Amino acid sequence: MFLSPLVSELVEALRVLPGVGPKSAQRMALHLLERNRSGGARLADVLVRAMEHVRECSDCQNLTEQARCHICESPARDHGLLCIVENPVDLLAIESSGSFRGVYFVLKGHLSPLDGIGPKELGIPRLLERVRAGEIREMILATNPTVEGEATAHYLRESLRDQTALIVTRIAHGVPMGGELEFVDGNTLAHALAGRTSVG
Amino acid sequence: MFLSPLVSELVEALRVLPGVGPKSAQRMALHLLERNRSGGARLADVLVRAMEHVRECSDCQNLTEQARCHICESPARDHGLLCIVENPVDLLAIESSGSFRGVYFVLKGHLSPLDGIGPKELGIPRLLERVRAGEIREMILATNPTVEGEATAHYLRESLRDQTALIVTRIAHGVPMGGELEFVDGNTLAHALAGRTSVG
Repeated sequence: MFLSPLVSELVEALRVLPGVGPKSAQRMALHLLERNRSGGARLADVLVRAMEHVRECSDCQNLTEQARCHICESPARDHGLLCIVENPVDLLAIESSGSFRGVYFVLKGHLSPLDGIGPKELGIPRLLERVRAGEIREMILATNPTVEGEATAHYLRESLRDQTALIVTRIAHGVPMGGELEFVDGNTLAHALAGRTSVG
Repeated sequence: MFLSPLVSELVEALRVLPGVGPKSAQRMALHLLERNRSGGARLADVLVRAMEHVRECSDCQNLTEQARCHICESPARDHGLLCIVENPVDLLAIESSGSFRGVYFVLKGHLSPLDGIGPKELGIPRLLERVRAGEIREMILATNPTVEGEATAHYLRESLRDQTALIVTRIAHGVPMGGELEFVDGNTLAHALAGRTSVG
């Protein structure tokens, strides 16, 4: 390398960020050193605090620096309506839509036996316990419509067959709003047709 | 925002990096928190050290944590051959080509009177002093072939008219290797024709 050891080390360290290759890391390092040292120092400070203090919400496993996250703590949310998502980004996507007032449970992944990820790794025993305690009226399965996401949703549904009072729903699959039928894949169209609703 | 305050703060802090918008910053923050806390902590540590200790080489203004950079320190380099570049990235580009064994002077910009960037801001007085001391045999002007880069090169050339023993050269402009004439702009072609060399 043609950079000084410490600058090289910074370039290397920046590559832990997703989507950052050697060229981008070099550009980032030089930008911080030449134009924004205070921004770099602030980033370092926030990184230290975040890596130390951010943990899982004891109720929903979402990322938070409190014992319980602001959604689980909020009295304005419907705590009887529980939405199961795979990842914090999925939670963010649903929150951004502004159309859900219940609470969440973040699995942080999906069942994947080959990778050694079973129900325990996803916190499912804790989730089942919470549902069985009886406070949940409806559980919405919002795992991704992939093979693994469907399998995880199926597992959760089957695990709670004994809860006869519990309503278990799955988010609708169909043609995305603003999309054109021409460009929608056959599998999605099949789901859209099977899940058709009356308009009259 | 739907993220906890500390996570939001991390997303915001990551946006100091060039080319990182709100979506990428969010992805980076969640990636570090969920999958690579040790990488995040190491990045914070290196950032702190780099922002504190990296400074300018006293000879060439390149970034280094030493008083003089490894190129200026090296006895293997030709200290009579001085290449003037605008930025550390330009130095890296030339070093990567492996075709230069002299030393550098990094201006860290170009003359831009409207932005208040004059010779003093670029360290040009120090450069002129060094050249006048008589150790430099040849000065290669490798500023960018832009209006500002050309003006900066012109200013340096004119400032050293009195140094009759000094050879001042400009890097060649022409058709890039591997390029096709068809796609080269007219200005570059004009330079390529004017700078033609004998092949016989």
